[in-house]
Amino acid sequence: MWFGLSGVRTPIILVNFKTYSEATGENALNLAEAAQRACLETGICVGVAPQFADIALISREVEIPVFAQHIDPIKPGSHTGHILPEAAKAAGAIGTLVNHSERRLKLADIDAIVTRAREVNLTTVVCSNNAAVSAAAATLEPDMIAVEPPELIGTGISVSKAKPEVVTSTIERVRKVNEQVVILCGAGITNGDDAAAALKLGTKGVLVASGIVKARNPYKVMLEFAEAMKKVQASRGQNV
Amino acid sequence: MWFGLSGVRTPIILVNFKTYSEATGENALNLAEAAQRACLETGICVGVAPQFADIALISREVEIPVFAQHIDPIKPGSHTGHILPEAAKAAGAIGTLVNHSERRLKLADIDAIVTRAREVNLTTVVCSNNAAVSAAAATLEPDMIAVEPPELIGTGISVSKAKPEVVTSTIERVRKVNEQVVILCGAGITNGDDAAAALKLGTKGVLVASGIVKARNPYKVMLEFAEAMKKVQASRGQNV
Amino acid sequence: MWFGLSGVRTPIILVNFKTYSEATGENALNLAEAAQRACLETGICVGVAPQFADIALISREVEIPVFAQHIDPIKPGSHTGHILPEAAKAAGAIGTLVNHSERRLKLADIDAIVTRAREVNLTTVVCSNNAAVSAAAATLEPDMIAVEPPELIGTGISVSKAKPEVVTSTIERVRKVNEQVVILCGAGITNGDDAAAALKLGTKGVLVASGIVKARNPYKVMLEFAEAMKKVQASRGQNV
Amino acid sequence: MWFGLSGVRTPIILVNFKTYSEATGENALNLAEAAQRACLETGICVGVAPQFADIALISREVEIPVFAQHIDPIKPGSHTGHILPEAAKAAGAIGTLVNHSERRLKLADIDAIVTRAREVNLTTVVCSNNAAVSAAAATLEPDMIAVEPPELIGTGISVSKAKPEVVTSTIERVRKVNEQVVILCGAGITNGDDAAAALKLGTKGVLVASGIVKARNPYKVMLEFAEAMKKVQASRGQNV
Repeated sequence: MWFGLSGVRTPIILVNFKTYSEATGENALNLAEAAQRACLETGICVGVAPQFADIALISREVEIPVFAQHIDPIKPGSHTGHILPEAAKAAGAIGTLVNHSERRLKLADIDAIVTRAREVNLTTVVCSNNAAVSAAAATLEPDMIAVEPPELIGTGISVSKAKPEVVTSTIERVRKVNEQVVILCGAGITNGDDAAAALKLGTKGVLVASGIVKARNPYKVMLEFAEAMKKVQASRGQNV
Repeated sequence: MWFGLSGVRTPIILVNFKTYSEATGENALNLAEAAQRACLETGICVGVAPQFADIALISREVEIPVFAQHIDPIKPGSHTGHILPEAAKAAGAIGTLVNHSERRLKLADIDAIVTRAREVNLTTVVCSNNAAVSAAAATLEPDMIAVEPPELIGTGISVSKAKPEVVTSTIERVRKVNEQVVILCGAGITNGDDAAAALKLGTKGVLVASGIVKARNPYKVMLEFAEAMKKVQASRGQNV
Repeated sequence: MWFGLSGVRTPIILVNFKTYSEATGENALNLAEAAQRACLETGICVGVAPQFADIALISREVEIPVFAQHIDPIKPGSHTGHILPEAAKAAGAIGTLVNHSERRLKLADIDAIVTRAREVNLTTVVCSNNAAVSAAAATLEPDMIAVEPPELIGTGISVSKAKPEVVTSTIERVRKVNEQVVILCGAGITNGDDAAAALKLGTKGVLVASGIVKARNPYKVMLEFAEAMKKVQASRGQNV
Repeated sequence: MWFGLSGVRTPIILVNFKTYSEATGENALNLAEAAQRACLETGICVGVAPQFADIALISREVEIPVFAQHIDPIKPGSHTGHILPEAAKAAGAIGTLVNHSERRLKLADIDAIVTRAREVNLTTVVCSNNAAVSAAAATLEPDMIAVEPPELIGTGISVSKAKPEVVTSTIERVRKVNEQVVILCGAGITNGDDAAAALKLGTKGVLVASGIVKARNPYKVMLEFAEAMKKVQASRGQNV
């Protein structure tokens, strides 16, 4: 199903489980399985970013990409209470979020994390709050950038429709310094229209949390997102 | 084997796996199984504190107490990249280290973590660097205090033999404000003598990392610790 | 006017200038001079805690006690961008706030700051958010504790009237571990009644910010606080 | 003497006072006056970055550029213990260091600080640890970048001679994303040769701390730096 991010030819839906009750322990496993069904049903890539403690069990049960929510810029050693990149990898993660708005990092640490992630073969999705920070992050050559205006996160007001200029200016500024990096957007994405709008603005997909995790029926919402994105893709007569 | 910390009548060996390679993923599981064997062999309580990503698999395989290395002072919600107490619990942890010298915390957060841990029924082991900080932590009524002079951590020079006055002054100052809290000590504990000395100074046991994890044969070292502690216990003709 | 905090026999009003425009640069100097007038007028001790950059000029112009808002737990050396206790002292501060709710600190750092402050003869006012944290801080033997429920800070709803039980339980828990420490309270103190209520609950005075700094006429408000506190003091026929 | 950084046509020596005793209080003022003499004597721009508490007095006494060592990404308001950009400005600073290796910052905060500094007309010198981070910082359009390999800071082994490739690769990567930003280098600069080498590698000057502050005769060392840099400038028959 999943063949490495450089090989992903479909749009991407990346579901951040945060520390929601609805996505902890047993619930996390159920949600990951629903994500896999949505992926198999539509052919759109759906990835999940559960809590650290849930990575191992989820990775054993599903084949869709599993991301950590954070890793620390450390090597094996004396770092009690930190997230060793190798440990995330060993548990089954294929990548990691970096610098999420709820876990902002020092610039030098983002650089070190991208380097360490590359060493252990983890895909990096560096989150950013605006176009300027996105471009700064892009110079560090992560695999993906996900721009999310913090003021819209969790609001249900989608960045792709309420602040499209944040997305387009991010794409423009990022492309000046990095032609390769995959660009996602997030914040307030709650329905198929929002997800489709994200693609139309030029991104490769969406980073989404409460819009799916807190939905009455997360599976249906993921399906709706995926179908809407598929239509955008189809209308182009080509892969995005 | 494990019957709640208030019920523990034997000395305690708590093994902090840190982010050592020797205690990550598959290695973590092997080490936890060795700890269980040492526990069964001697009747001394041996607990383990693996990385977050390893808690779930270890908890399924062993019955000795498994601790998280840290939890965050949060409730379920929007806290990407943080450690939800409920998630550590769901993965199988029965307790957590708090404020380890490699993960020092704000005072108000230690208070909030102890409160949250109590809510989800996780045993707290608050680490401290000296007698004054131990007493301050003890007023917050955690289950255990583990005093570790940071300058000895990882050195192989044991606190119980090189700085016994740190241990005794900790016990003295802690007892003035809290009669219940279980007191451990750590830093540089590498052999049975060090472990025995810790008990003789009046602690209930040891927090140990490299002395066991980095040993050529961790099982043998745990056995040595446990046997030495058992002798101290026996010489008292009573439980410590 | 000012004869060391152990020697202060009057109630205390400590004005935190935060980073308000009304208390920056030239405005900070004017406010400090108004505080001095209120102090001279009433005989109640009024101290000020301006921003670092304003300490030196204010200390030259007034004789009331000037506090830093924070110091770092460092010795002279390589600590770019940090607050050296000696530098605050050299600029004319006689004390410092520690662990304010807007600048929460690690437990081990509070301990180290109290120790360093003592070395350079700076009076410490450790801020706390509740009774448990106040008691923990008190074991570290600072000169003063200032309890401020964060949810009331800046609201104009005074702790002394809306949450008197926070103040009384703080006094009770603190006194179990420390009989000497001076106890202040803060959060939402805006008029003479609030200030008087703080004394009646058993504190030595108040830590106040917006209630004075943001007032149309800060001098008048300080006068009102001081007069109200003086009455409480007088009604006791003795010094508080 | 000082006519804005865009107008500086001479090489730059920026002296970071850190929290050294030799550069605190009275000593800070003496050192700033020595810097001014070196500047007047040679015509090379010498700036100083004293501690916050010393900015005001120094700014009154000298006319050379005075920098803060850090500012926070805040607006006037409730930020006890933080550095308000307006306060640094009011005290007389014309600019600020940002993200020094001893005060590393979050990426989003560096962006916010550069923006805030521009609003209050403070010149920004963003410090970085390598070429990649320098380029990332440069996309945020600060006034200057100062690259300093942390492992050389304070060693007396100069970056310009021991790791010239760090400097040249920084210039190369920065110029790809930003043609305007002034580039300095630092770490281990202790004599005229080191300073001259920095210019020859293509930088505009040096950021230096212990090499000058800890010297037996700081004035003589500043003079030596300035003379050596002047020669490089002269040999080009033009301004750098």
